[in-house]
Amino acid sequence: METLRWEKGTLYLLDQTVLPFTENYLACTTWQDVHKAISVLAVRGAPAIGVAAAYGVVLGARSILDGAGGKPFLTAVQEICTNLDGARPTAVNLHWALEQMMDCAKEYGNESPSAIVDALEEKAKAIHADDVAINTAMARCGADEVGKGDRPLTLLTHCNAGALATAGVGTALGVITELHRRKKVTMVYADETRPLLQGARLTAFELMTGGVPVTLITDNMAAWTMKEKGVDAIIVGADRIAANGDTANKIGTYGLSLMARALGIPLYIAAPLSTFDRSLADGSQIPIEERNHDEVRSFRGAATALSDTPVYNPAFDVTPHENIRAIITEKGIISHPDTVAVTAFFDKHLL
Amino acid sequence: METLRWEKGTLYLLDQTVLPFTENYLACTTWQDVHKAISVLAVRGAPAIGVAAAYGVVLGARSILDGAGGKPFLTAVQEICTNLDGARPTAVNLHWALEQMMDCAKEYGNESPSAIVDALEEKAKAIHADDVAINTAMARCGADEVGKGDRPLTLLTHCNAGALATAGVGTALGVITELHRRKKVTMVYADETRPLLQGARLTAFELMTGGVPVTLITDNMAAWTMKEKGVDAIIVGADRIAANGDTANKIGTYGLSLMARALGIPLYIAAPLSTFDRSLADGSQIPIEERNHDEVRSFRGAATALSDTPVYNPAFDVTPHENIRAIITEKGIISHPDTVAVTAFFDKHLL
Repeated sequence: METLRWEKGTLYLLDQTVLPFTENYLACTTWQDVHKAISVLAVRGAPAIGVAAAYGVVLGARSILDGAGGKPFLTAVQEICTNLDGARPTAVNLHWALEQMMDCAKEYGNESPSAIVDALEEKAKAIHADDVAINTAMARCGADEVGKGDRPLTLLTHCNAGALATAGVGTALGVITELHRRKKVTMVYADETRPLLQGARLTAFELMTGGVPVTLITDNMAAWTMKEKGVDAIIVGADRIAANGDTANKIGTYGLSLMARALGIPLYIAAPLSTFDRSLADGSQIPIEERNHDEVRSFRGAATALSDTPVYNPAFDVTPHENIRAIITEKGIISHPDTVAVTAFFDKHLL
Repeated sequence: METLRWEKGTLYLLDQTVLPFTENYLACTTWQDVHKAISVLAVRGAPAIGVAAAYGVVLGARSILDGAGGKPFLTAVQEICTNLDGARPTAVNLHWALEQMMDCAKEYGNESPSAIVDALEEKAKAIHADDVAINTAMARCGADEVGKGDRPLTLLTHCNAGALATAGVGTALGVITELHRRKKVTMVYADETRPLLQGARLTAFELMTGGVPVTLITDNMAAWTMKEKGVDAIIVGADRIAANGDTANKIGTYGLSLMARALGIPLYIAAPLSTFDRSLADGSQIPIEERNHDEVRSFRGAATALSDTPVYNPAFDVTPHENIRAIITEKGIISHPDTVAVTAFFDKHLL
């Protein structure tokens, strides 16, 4: 089962809105197909939507080979990138991947449109392959860090930062799976993650499939589970990280960080470097997506409240860097992240 | 709409498992009907199940007027009480009400079974009427305390501690409704309260019906809502309070208390004195009900996870007294509750 697959000019996306009950691939042949798939969360997870959008640019650029309505080819490609960038506002990996694609298009700007499209396809494949490699490196770095003690660990995670959120083994779940491989996992508690239940539908499913011991809880059981079950560490993914380490992730992460801090439990963020947006000094500048209110008022066709109930539905929140023990990246660990530590890390790795 | 109604020897319970989508009354004519209604949460909320159980004893006692299988009448009544007491383990109001009923039966022990049943019926009606009066008194005490500033308040509540959880105006929602009457409420954020969604189905519905401004959120949005929306206070009910003020309430309350403490937001518990169990020194001794795993794996027939997903489903958690600003009772406020403060309060009121 692959999260996304590029085959003969078509992007196949595993439809995550119907998992784990139905395994269905969406065949995307236009950039609009990809835009829609990202918007409705058929493909989700910050790294995965970056890769999907890159292929979306290829589909879009190819569709205007026969003419871009009188516009210069690169202008038309830029418009497609801008459109795709609007599909979801919080995860910066989407923006990052589209910038990579546009840079590539410009680099080949003097070539024929057909040659540019070929270059874009190679670039999208490279972003895809890189994500796989980055995930594997991150999993090792994270397992080294989190699993440095002798004792096997009781872990807690939120939302889905697994293979389904990336092109590879996942970010947070990549680390957890690697820890499991090293016999360092006693149990993983997975928050169900309302409203869209990525924890219940995707994380529990993914860990069960991988043979990793998992127990599903509702989001409001997290604190009691930490206390009663002796949770040793929390590992989650990220959608955007500011220059000072403040981290936007799925709604609920901020609350977990407050609980974890009160209970002395370390919170780890696992995210590729493409998740950093160092143009933002701190998390207050990260745009937070608010989604349709019916997500809160229902689930899978079952109403949970009256249809006219007022709702607040932020899809993400921002965890202040003080509440984060370390950020796990493909290049190593940023412990006790703040502006100084993040800057030093990027300087050291010449990024 | 009444939560429960006693009419011509039948207990009518508003079936809360199907609210707010369907308004249906269950007619209970046997103590077993009442036991089942409590077990499946057709009637729920600590005070309401106490009142329902009291009527259950009347139904049970009446059914054995023609003979209790050779047992003495009081012995048979005691057995019914013991059975009803097992319907749910955490809320002590159930136990308290049954003790009141048994004390009444013993008081009339020398009278005929028929006279005892009449006395039990009067006692159940008195417990019912008392709950109404207690709710009203608690609402005033709580509104005086929480609303003592000039500014209208942004509040957050969890689960349902309203009219639907009691025979009267509610505990936490009684306080909130009284604050609203005094024009002291800007907005009430209601946690949906998975797995059974009492917040979405009951609290949002009840507040909307009462004209109180309410916004529904998922449980994992609570911390971000506190921060972004400037929540001034959290008010919730309780299922059992130990001698030192440690409070068992719906799962999620403990997490809220950690978040609230981190953010300097006061957490208030509104509960009648019948919720105290001073035989327990602290909250570690309160039994925590674990419920069916399918509650977490589904809602209203819609699966949220694969049916073989391992689950942890505690229905309650315990909030340590240090995280509670005050307990609001029908006799006044216990600020910064601990063993000394709780003891002094009970001594002062000669309880």
